Formats: sequence, C-alpha cells, structure tokens
Amino acid sequence: MNRRGILIVVSGFAGSGKGTIMNELLKQYDNYALSISATTRKPRGQEVNGKEYFFKTTEEFEKMIAQGELIEYANYVGNYYGTPKAYVEEQLNSGKDVILEIEIQGALKVKEKFPDTLLLFVTPPSAAILKERLVGRGTETMDVVEQRMRRAAEEAEGLASYDYILINDDLQTCVLQMHNIIQSEHYRTSRNREFMCQIKDELNGNVKGE
Amino acid sequence: MNRRGILIVVSGFAGSGKGTIMNELLKQYDNYALSISATTRKPRGQEVNGKEYFFKTTEEFEKMIAQGELIEYANYVGNYYGTPKAYVEEQLNSGKDVILEIEIQGALKVKEKFPDTLLLFVTPPSAAILKERLVGRGTETMDVVEQRMRRAAEEAEGLASYDYILINDDLQTCVLQMHNIIQSEHYRTSRNREFMCQIKDELNGNVKGE
Repeated sequence: MNRRGILIVVSGFAGSGKGTIMNELLKQYDNYALSISATTRKPRGQEVNGKEYFFKTTEEFEKMIAQGELIEYANYVGNYYGTPKAYVEEQLNSGKDVILEIEIQGALKVKEKFPDTLLLFVTPPSAAILKERLVGRGTETMDVVEQRMRRAAEEAEGLASYDYILINDDLQTCVLQMHNIIQSEHYRTSRNREFMCQIKDELNGNVKGE
Repeated sequence: MNRRGILIVVSGFAGSGKGTIMNELLKQYDNYALSISATTRKPRGQEVNGKEYFFKTTEEFEKMIAQGELIEYANYVGNYYGTPKAYVEEQLNSGKDVILEIEIQGALKVKEKFPDTLLLFVTPPSAAILKERLVGRGTETMDVVEQRMRRAAEEAEGLASYDYILINDDLQTCVLQMHNIIQSEHYRTSRNREFMCQIKDELNGNVKGE
C-alpha cells in the first residue's frame, strides 16, 4: 500500500473555524505535518524562525522564487508569503500527510503543479451562522464583518474546485471527518498505481512465480 | 448536507473475502442496504424470493429488460441475472448507501448509467496470498484454483477503472476502511452541489437575508 504522504490544502471562510480544526487534528493524530510558510514580514511577539514561519529577507525570498524552491507564493501588502518545497517534500517522503492552510488562489496553483493535491474546504453550516460567529468574536467592527462576508461570497464561487466540503457544525465531528477523508484518500486507485502493477505482474506470472 | 444514499459497486477477486466484508459491514452499520438481484434461475435450498434474489420467469425478466427496469443485467450459463432499479432507487432515496456486489463488466455498465456510482475493489495483499486462500478452502481442485488465478489476472486489468482499492489483510480493519471511504464520499463537492448553491445564495443575499 502506498504510504507516501498526501499533500492537502485546507481553505475556508474566515470564521469557519479551520484553524481550530487544524490544531485538533495535529494534536490528536501523529501522521500530519503542517507546512511552514516562508515570509519577508518581520517576526511578531514570540514568533520563532522555523516554527510559525521561515523568516527571510526580500533578497533571500526572491532567490527562492528564482530557483523554483517555492510551491506557491504571493505578495500581500508589501510582504512575500510562500510555501517552501523542500520541507513539504521531506515530510511527504517520510510518510506524513502535509497540510497547507492557504486561500483558493494558492490552492489552485498548488493543484496545477501537483495534481494529486487534495483540496478541502471548511464552511460553517450556513451564512447566518458564519455572520453570527464573526459578530460573536467581538473583535471586529461591523464594517469588517461585512467585508468578511463579501469576501466569503467571492470565495464561495470557487467551491467546486475543491474535492471535499466539510461543514463545521461540531468541532470534534469535523476533525474526525477530516481525518477519515484524508486517510480514505490513501486507498484511491490513482494513488496506488505501484501496488496495482505489482499485483498484476504477480498474477500474470503466478505459475512461474512460485 | 447531502444525505441521499450513494450507489456503490463492490468487486474483488474470488478469494478476496469481499462476501465476508459485506456481511460484517451490514451487521455493524445500519446505513447500508445490499441490492437484491433478479434472476431466472430456480431457487436453491432455503432461498427466499425477495431475500437472496427476486425470482422471475424468463418472460418476466425480458419484460423488465424491455421496460428499462434493470440497472444492468447479464446472462450466465442460460440464466439471466440483473439489478432491479426500483429497489435501489427506493433505498437511495431513503438515505441508505446501496451496495451492488457485481463483476467489472457490470460495474462499468452501472458507472456509465450512473456516473456518481462509487467503485470499490477488494484484493488480498498479494497474488501468493490469494492462491493460498483458494487452496486453503480445500473445496476446489487445483484445476479450478488455476482457473480462478487466470480469471484474477484478467480482472486485474480493469483495476484502474475503480475509485478505491482495499487490501483485505485484516477483516475488521478492512470493514472499517470501507465504511470510512463510503462515508467520506458523502462530503465530495460533486455530491453536494445543492448545499454549495444554497450557501452561495445566502452569502450573496446576506445583507437582505437577515
């Protein structure tokens, strides 16, 4: 059976609770690794290089771009953010399923480069509940809430590009579903060509092969 | 969330243990229904109409074919065997995941008519273990064992048409894997178009919708 890791992109509306799901998934199961992004923005507070981010200078980052060392990257408000290929490959080869928490544009770029990537999208049960959660946080002004809702409406247009949609109604149920979805994907025929060739060869040569 | 049932075809080499897996799956979970085939062969022993098979006369069966009441059918050694559509539809509508235990030719016919069908293939860990199991049954002559192995080699050619491959190494592990695969499929975006449209509509109308 194929036990190379699967590359997974998790996206979701702001307020979908995907961050909490990721934390629980990593806490409960030891077969996952979270991809660490590289960025040119400065470390904040307790952030440690190689933990929250790989902190890079603009020069270093642009060298990584030029040398094809990033799976995807983007520039937000003057800072680069990207996914270093080496760390991801290393984790996949060791059998870990590697999770990238990125937005749809990045998700589609990753899928184009690595067609085996599994795209998961997390959503609350309804738009009303999404809004409730955003308002309930109490940390955002109503303007920001409305802005997030409009952004969610835009993001929803890309939903069909994802492989699976998870409805975060109950946290633990959602974590288990995500785990089962990813583990089930290991049994896809398209991920097990080597095993299938092997059993075909064995069957064709079975009389000789004894 | 979409809770209409999923139509599932389970195939596997003779000796893969798929019959035992089906029995366990139906025993352990209540969301599955096994499709009951119609046949023109005569009932044997304790077989009951509507349980093991729907027993039909040739005339009745050919009428079912003519009226498009069968999902697929075939003729083996002078008898018709087929899958009645009505029973399957009824179970799917009630939310049950319906399992058809048929061979690859039938599987491909079903997939053509119902593209949402999930195709699962059960295999032992290796050709050597398959042969061991067939020999171990002690009910078959070596000629029959060799014939089954040749048949398995033919069937293996069609493996890539299946969605998932399950390796039956340990029965309970395999039953749980099959259950997780089927339940995870319920979260495929392609099976949740209605929910996705609904959340898009809600998000687009969120300001008015309150």
